[in-house]
Amino acid sequence: MTDTAAAAGDVKPRRMLPSERRDDLIAATLSLFGRKPHHKVTPADIVAEAGVSRALFYRYFSSMDELNIAALEKVTEGLTAQLLPPEDEPLVGQVRHAIHELFSFARAYPTPYIALVRRGPGVSTPGAYELVEKVRTDTIDAILARARAAPTPYLLLTVRSWIGLLEGTVLTWLTDRVEERALPRHELEDWLLGQLRAMVAATTEFDSGAADLARGLQ
Amino acid sequence: MTDTAAAAGDVKPRRMLPSERRDDLIAATLSLFGRKPHHKVTPADIVAEAGVSRALFYRYFSSMDELNIAALEKVTEGLTAQLLPPEDEPLVGQVRHAIHELFSFARAYPTPYIALVRRGPGVSTPGAYELVEKVRTDTIDAILARARAAPTPYLLLTVRSWIGLLEGTVLTWLTDRVEERALPRHELEDWLLGQLRAMVAATTEFDSGAADLARGLQ
Repeated sequence: MTDTAAAAGDVKPRRMLPSERRDDLIAATLSLFGRKPHHKVTPADIVAEAGVSRALFYRYFSSMDELNIAALEKVTEGLTAQLLPPEDEPLVGQVRHAIHELFSFARAYPTPYIALVRRGPGVSTPGAYELVEKVRTDTIDAILARARAAPTPYLLLTVRSWIGLLEGTVLTWLTDRVEERALPRHELEDWLLGQLRAMVAATTEFDSGAADLARGLQ
Repeated sequence: MTDTAAAAGDVKPRRMLPSERRDDLIAATLSLFGRKPHHKVTPADIVAEAGVSRALFYRYFSSMDELNIAALEKVTEGLTAQLLPPEDEPLVGQVRHAIHELFSFARAYPTPYIALVRRGPGVSTPGAYELVEKVRTDTIDAILARARAAPTPYLLLTVRSWIGLLEGTVLTWLTDRVEERALPRHELEDWLLGQLRAMVAATTEFDSGAADLARGLQ
């Protein structure tokens, strides 16, 4: 469908509540993100994907930047929920789950993932960095709270460093997959858990509080 | 000195060879980098610092971007040399030295360091990313070669992840210093070596070749 056809009123969107319509435009954006470099997604793509008029697009979003940030909010909200499994599982299982979910997320949204982690072009969207930082902070807080470990400076530094290592490894895996030279995902997931255990254990020499998390990871 | 004064010929630069003059402009730029956010350094600042005319600046560099990249080349060349101590020292000593030198470098050039590691604004300079990547790759290659360890995928992933952790830790230290809440540098240097040891040791389960590096780090 061309943009002109949509604007000319060939499209008959079914009646939706304003909040539903907004969510629908966000869903169309997310679906496009999985198929196209996200900084190349235009309002014309969105209206074609959602089957609505261009005028309708601008009734909900003043610009592509505004829609981008709304889509990113949706994605990062979902990601935080996805990363944290029910608390009744042992901590190791929870961490394994979080690692697994981040790989799945990166595969579902490769171009936004790459752009956000690399902070390359296309993440000029104001507020994007803050949203990603919030996922990081929430994840770190949850890991420490669930291990009943105090957020001392060395423990925070260790877990934060490991989050960086996790993001970087998933990024490498994602880009290596294209060239069919990625290490096997399930092996990388084990390796990542092993790295966290080793890093936390090494930190106990600097911060006795790290022992609480080290125990939880056994 | 104002830019106009310089252009009007009030400044009498001493005679230099073209290569000396070029180096002198680069040195002036580097000196400014230590005192001012580097993306705010202008040709006017450089000519004032070097005591030359604006016309002379443009005889050597067509734009601030070109001078930026020349300065960055100078800095990263120096850094690679600085990070790698003589080979006759034991490997642990060499790694300690590299950690120590990166802290010193970051303190000497805080704003370029922050911008390069964060990939924030001001590193739009084309080629800057490649230069920093080259420092990383050269350092990783040197560590593995000196440990006589083969660059297998897991070992590369481990050392590369640790380099990321090192860069991030120095960045945190640098920004925390401003608020006087940084962890002590010498303690962080020990912590970083401990993290590398622990990470490499954990990798031996996935790649027996990692044992060569693990031994070298004892």
